[in-house]
Amino acid sequence: MPPFRKYTIQESGAFVETVAYPPTASGPLDGLRFAVKDIIDLAGHRTSCGSPDWGRTHPPAAANALCVDQLLGAGARCVGKAICDELAFSLDGENYFYGAPLNPRAPDHVTGGSSSGSASAVACGLADFALGTDTGGSLRVPAANCGIFGWRPSHGFISTAGVTPFAPGFDTVGLLAESADLLSRAGSVLLAASVPGDVEVGALHLISEAWANADQEIRAALSRTVKLLQGLFGDKVHETSLREIDGGGAGLGLASWYETSSILQWCEMWSCLGSWVESVKPALSPKAAKFFELIKNTDRRRLGDAVRTRERYCRRLKNFLGPRDLLCFPTVPAPARFKGGVKVDRPDQPKTNYYPRTLSLTAIAGIGRLPEVSLPLAEVGGVPVGLSLLAAPGQDAYLLGVVQLVASRSGL
Amino acid sequence: MPPFRKYTIQESGAFVETVAYPPTASGPLDGLRFAVKDIIDLAGHRTSCGSPDWGRTHPPAAANALCVDQLLGAGARCVGKAICDELAFSLDGENYFYGAPLNPRAPDHVTGGSSSGSASAVACGLADFALGTDTGGSLRVPAANCGIFGWRPSHGFISTAGVTPFAPGFDTVGLLAESADLLSRAGSVLLAASVPGDVEVGALHLISEAWANADQEIRAALSRTVKLLQGLFGDKVHETSLREIDGGGAGLGLASWYETSSILQWCEMWSCLGSWVESVKPALSPKAAKFFELIKNTDRRRLGDAVRTRERYCRRLKNFLGPRDLLCFPTVPAPARFKGGVKVDRPDQPKTNYYPRTLSLTAIAGIGRLPEVSLPLAEVGGVPVGLSLLAAPGQDAYLLGVVQLVASRSGL
Repeated sequence: MPPFRKYTIQESGAFVETVAYPPTASGPLDGLRFAVKDIIDLAGHRTSCGSPDWGRTHPPAAANALCVDQLLGAGARCVGKAICDELAFSLDGENYFYGAPLNPRAPDHVTGGSSSGSASAVACGLADFALGTDTGGSLRVPAANCGIFGWRPSHGFISTAGVTPFAPGFDTVGLLAESADLLSRAGSVLLAASVPGDVEVGALHLISEAWANADQEIRAALSRTVKLLQGLFGDKVHETSLREIDGGGAGLGLASWYETSSILQWCEMWSCLGSWVESVKPALSPKAAKFFELIKNTDRRRLGDAVRTRERYCRRLKNFLGPRDLLCFPTVPAPARFKGGVKVDRPDQPKTNYYPRTLSLTAIAGIGRLPEVSLPLAEVGGVPVGLSLLAAPGQDAYLLGVVQLVASRSGL
Repeated sequence: MPPFRKYTIQESGAFVETVAYPPTASGPLDGLRFAVKDIIDLAGHRTSCGSPDWGRTHPPAAANALCVDQLLGAGARCVGKAICDELAFSLDGENYFYGAPLNPRAPDHVTGGSSSGSASAVACGLADFALGTDTGGSLRVPAANCGIFGWRPSHGFISTAGVTPFAPGFDTVGLLAESADLLSRAGSVLLAASVPGDVEVGALHLISEAWANADQEIRAALSRTVKLLQGLFGDKVHETSLREIDGGGAGLGLASWYETSSILQWCEMWSCLGSWVESVKPALSPKAAKFFELIKNTDRRRLGDAVRTRERYCRRLKNFLGPRDLLCFPTVPAPARFKGGVKVDRPDQPKTNYYPRTLSLTAIAGIGRLPEVSLPLAEVGGVPVGLSLLAAPGQDAYLLGVVQLVASRSGL
């Protein structure tokens, strides 16, 4: 891939505002710049969560989020508060109120969301890495769309203090970066663990339902990378189905992972946001208004089954995955949509059933509390797509080490 | 122990208000009543978090917290919103604004907090079990003081959606119950896992620093139980030091666990509450006002070291503990204080250095993300004290099974 050209702040449209927070100490991130998604607190600023009325009805943050202070304390400086999708629930990358940040690798296409500005800032060269959050794909999807690295950590290992909660059973704070090296350097600060330089790999499982769920063009574009992985993992590459992981029975496919994670996230989001929506009656985009109607009316008696299914899948994944084993599949099932979807119905917008298909892929790490990294390893028609590697819960440092290895072998 | 006599709602003083939420479905908790700590949302009610100004400045909850809906969906009914300590940060059990719920087993002594009303409701027979939260001991301490069972779950496995966040890296939602059986029945609903009836035990590690940290009277009172455990675990009972778990080197003792967890929790709490405190300028008890001054002024450059130490301890514990191994030590280092500490300086209040000593014990599960259950297995001078068992992260169902076994062998 060609080196990234630098874009101006105006061209990128990544930031709600630029800021200048100096490092609080010297450390492994000396000299590096980072952006912060606007649902993560920066002391002295209002956190808007992509909604002007959220910002208006909440006081300025008294303290930085913990993750921000971790990075400032390791030598990095914060340069901008990055736009995100309205109340962090969509994968669009087009905010009805704040606009759509530039995807410099595919300017007619969206960045994806909800960590849209964080992805744009990194892809445009305005930050070396960026903090974002990922509940249902909000780091992985924009990473794939923008041709950068994106890491959703294991659930519960990076503090969410100072980060607005949306669905705490799924919410994670993670990173976007231009290179595997930068991802590892910043990741190791958040994890407080060193990323191994030399990794010994276990088994690599290509999840068959997830591959089948992706466009033929994406499978073809990633085939070169799969060959590379076969070179690295040798005879430990397997085609594995989710049914097999779920005990080999007549278990349900990817649709059940998607449905389970949707119900849980909808109920959690209404528990977290419902009181504010009902009392403030905020200005919402038509899409958000529709979404809140949907989650408000979710039958919460379905929760029992959904929690049971989630925990069963989670336990099965945990028992299946050894500490060095990985799952692998395309991050997104289709390339990024054209821009304009939020305000305009574009006739050239292909009907791809994009949301259910994408959320089916992102649900695997969400349900399983697994770490996942999207690597920018291919393009389809000039639009970047990503390949995802997932590890066992808590194996984030190992996963980041594998990502560095794969990236260097791929010439990234 | 004598059977619990029933107390009236007025005698107990456990509730902010009584409620009547019927079950939404029939299930394993049919016919059981539960109380809910007033930092956990009940739809239609204001959640006060033990602070009148918090309630006043936040809208009524639009939805139940997820854990409440899980229990209602399993057949239980909710009978009360239980008092908690002001903004959930203390272990007192005496709320400056709402009063001190009754500890029926030791009426001159506090229940402990912050899940004070939840513990009182259970101990007074007004609820079969109660939901509470535990960041730094808020379920375990009142369980020990009130002579009931208290379970702090593994971090991240019970959803906190609809529960006010204070220190999300440590916050957990868990249960108080009168019996091990009720704890298991309700726990298995929250966990979505069955509690094994027949458990095969691994090693039991009596943590030497934690035992040394407790009053001689507590160690003596628990010695009968330790003998019982030796009968169950046989030659797999070991005296183990935290230094040994931390790699056998010249590592730091319990004081370092306490200090690490304090710094992290203070920083997280200021990230979560600081904006509200600074903008609303709420009425605070003198103790809370002092606490917020303290956490506001914590040097956040200490975060880097604290996160690194926490994650090292957490990894060491995880590597040390097999899936059936347990840690064991007294839940509290001293019996519950006399009532009256919040508003009156009682001359008969012994100077016990209570907070650092207690938080040193509760820090072990907090730092390690481990599940812990306090069992009501002894008394000191007529005041209940607890024995804690801790398991590896995610081994909650196994731990609840062991608790049932130990309870039945102890005649509870």
